[in-house]
Amino acid sequence: MSNGKKEELSNYDLSAGDKIRIKTSSEEVREGFFIPSAKQDGDIVLKLESGYNIGLKEENIEKLEVIERKKQGKEDVGKNKDFKYSKDAKNVLILHTGGTIASRVSYEEGGVKPGFSVEDLKEIYPEIFETANISSEIISQMLSEDMEPSHWKKISEKVFENLEDFDGIIISHGTDTMQYTASALSFMIKNISKPVVLVGSQRSSDRPSSDSFLNLKAAVKFIEEGIPGVFVCMHGSSDDEIVFVHRGTRVRKMHTSRRDAFKSIRSEPFAEIDIEKDKLVLNGEIQKTEDETELLNDLDEEVGFLKVVPGMKKKDLEKLEGCNGLIIEGTGLGHLPVNSFDEHTKHHEKILGKLEEICEDTVVCMTSQCINGRVNLDVYDSGVKIKDAGVVSGRSMLPGTAYVKLMWALGNSDTLEESKDLLLKNVAGEFIEREDYDVFR
Amino acid sequence: MSNGKKEELSNYDLSAGDKIRIKTSSEEVREGFFIPSAKQDGDIVLKLESGYNIGLKEENIEKLEVIERKKQGKEDVGKNKDFKYSKDAKNVLILHTGGTIASRVSYEEGGVKPGFSVEDLKEIYPEIFETANISSEIISQMLSEDMEPSHWKKISEKVFENLEDFDGIIISHGTDTMQYTASALSFMIKNISKPVVLVGSQRSSDRPSSDSFLNLKAAVKFIEEGIPGVFVCMHGSSDDEIVFVHRGTRVRKMHTSRRDAFKSIRSEPFAEIDIEKDKLVLNGEIQKTEDETELLNDLDEEVGFLKVVPGMKKKDLEKLEGCNGLIIEGTGLGHLPVNSFDEHTKHHEKILGKLEEICEDTVVCMTSQCINGRVNLDVYDSGVKIKDAGVVSGRSMLPGTAYVKLMWALGNSDTLEESKDLLLKNVAGEFIEREDYDVFR
Repeated sequence: MSNGKKEELSNYDLSAGDKIRIKTSSEEVREGFFIPSAKQDGDIVLKLESGYNIGLKEENIEKLEVIERKKQGKEDVGKNKDFKYSKDAKNVLILHTGGTIASRVSYEEGGVKPGFSVEDLKEIYPEIFETANISSEIISQMLSEDMEPSHWKKISEKVFENLEDFDGIIISHGTDTMQYTASALSFMIKNISKPVVLVGSQRSSDRPSSDSFLNLKAAVKFIEEGIPGVFVCMHGSSDDEIVFVHRGTRVRKMHTSRRDAFKSIRSEPFAEIDIEKDKLVLNGEIQKTEDETELLNDLDEEVGFLKVVPGMKKKDLEKLEGCNGLIIEGTGLGHLPVNSFDEHTKHHEKILGKLEEICEDTVVCMTSQCINGRVNLDVYDSGVKIKDAGVVSGRSMLPGTAYVKLMWALGNSDTLEESKDLLLKNVAGEFIEREDYDVFR
Repeated sequence: MSNGKKEELSNYDLSAGDKIRIKTSSEEVREGFFIPSAKQDGDIVLKLESGYNIGLKEENIEKLEVIERKKQGKEDVGKNKDFKYSKDAKNVLILHTGGTIASRVSYEEGGVKPGFSVEDLKEIYPEIFETANISSEIISQMLSEDMEPSHWKKISEKVFENLEDFDGIIISHGTDTMQYTASALSFMIKNISKPVVLVGSQRSSDRPSSDSFLNLKAAVKFIEEGIPGVFVCMHGSSDDEIVFVHRGTRVRKMHTSRRDAFKSIRSEPFAEIDIEKDKLVLNGEIQKTEDETELLNDLDEEVGFLKVVPGMKKKDLEKLEGCNGLIIEGTGLGHLPVNSFDEHTKHHEKILGKLEEICEDTVVCMTSQCINGRVNLDVYDSGVKIKDAGVVSGRSMLPGTAYVKLMWALGNSDTLEESKDLLLKNVAGEFIEREDYDVFR
């Protein structure tokens, strides 16, 4: 296109999902579906038949042709099954909660905002809707940093009431707190009978480099295996080759922006999927049960979280008094300054005494800011003192997982002792059972 | 040794450093220095000529012979230069602060306690005292979780007053908070002219598997290069092959117990040392300055630390009011629940309003719990809101480094604006300057 490009483009009045053909100045012809609002990476984003997005610079567009306008449907409300049903394909429910996967770039205000409808997602990912019988429902339209424990309860209810009817459930979710929601669902649904897979993306779906397509496609493929449990499915490498499936209780977002940000901690990913080669490698152990599925989603939100830093004072512990539970993210094997001496006041800080006091009516659990490895309060003298004060060891539980689990353990028991027992029982793979097993890179 | 072993062993009245020869039941003969109190891994620990420790079971000892009693010297007080001086060797000062490297297993009470004297260390590591002219001084005998900001000041003073007289300084330190002390020293000594290397060990020096020998040896080798700066020197692999030298502001303890627990974040280690092959590979950039070295060790300890977890409430921010500085360890690119809606009270939580209020008289800096990557408050709508509230982005600074730096920035400036400027200036490699450079495994 030559001068006055903007006018020319706007003359076409393109909508998400319109099938267009573009001839570039280098004589290439590209055909695909138009995706709006993706000017960050190129002036037009085309969703190719292969499922991948490409960006094209406006000045390189020689000719644009609309092949087919998308069907204008009403906005989705409630569950929705538009695509043809195949009795050989799996029945999959996608529950949309929001997040980058359902977001677009907002040029007016700067930043990314949640804003895709299920309808939009269908237009962008028709292939996914063709490999399985997909139903979908919007639960919320929020970025995951705004997720509250009350939302976990809502999601768990939706999952629980649909488990019977589907072969698997995908939850599209923002990546920021995905690991916390995955942990919550892992504990809330007892004897889970189907795969429940959280999927997100690190690049919004309207960007050429979006990882949402491959993550969703891999989630559908994983569901075909019929392995029960709660999992997170995200890119395993920075290119579009491998997707990892992680156990919901052992996964952590380890990079702010890369597509392969999610890592299983102290273990290999539960499964590795190569979509191109149609290959799935299973590393994890399958746990199946015939026992009845139960919803145990009561939570006690009065759980505090304290990360230990040098210079931590007794007053930092005092601020957390009154909680019913407390997760400490200690240093090393699970330490805090129990012997610290204040050079200014020339007094011992008596942090230990305060800790002992708090332990009288609070479940206090020690985890480690090292992330990898396991808490061990028996190695150092200071660890022994912390244990003697009444603190329980979170062992190989991740701090975030322990935080969610403590809310759940307190919510589903009557006494502090019962809560402790529940907290320290391996419910959903949150503990590494084999002491000697360790993956660390 | 047959029956009554205990008596027989005690008959020898062995002390640390006694040179002994042992014949085992499999006819092997081992010669080395005796190390006391290491019964956890074997009944006797021998320090071999090669520098490595081995453990021998008491029941496998056929014959024990004392070759030479260690020289009985008085306990070290203050600096100490016992070994022969060589004018070709580097002059190295070891400042001992305590930690596992100077600890022994306590069988009476269980757990590991600090308890080696410099004298003991010399007996265990004679080789190190032979490759350089080593002086040493005990500053403290504490485990690193008890280190307070006041101790950083003390250490910085000791380093500063000795920089002129030595080619390099080694600080033996516990591993738990080593990264915090390394950051503090990085900021406190301006225009540093010599290498200052923190060394620790994950296994106490009286254990056969101790990593202290190789870490110390590598630190001496690194000092020979004469590269100024503050560094951390620890095992780079789980065997005794490679030792990594990390920049003090970019290192993090990433495993509770492994010897290769320390990782450089978002970059290769500054240097990699293969002691066996006597090889040193340098990855980092050397920064030398002719400007005068200055001690800038004022700290404002009124800095809070908040890790964002789902379910975080406005009251969690309120508890931190009154701090002069606040480090937030946000989710993802640097978020917290700015739009959160409380399902119980049916109210928006107004966390943003409280944040704005706190920013009026507090320097608030956002970091990320993802550890890898960098904070970016411009990508998402919620990030833009956080920035508009007055929070500054910690970019690629590690949360722990940012916490220490904010104490230092507040302590060395007169106004909030000055503190912010100092916080966001690259002082000691705490920022990755090249946006596109990223190491992530």
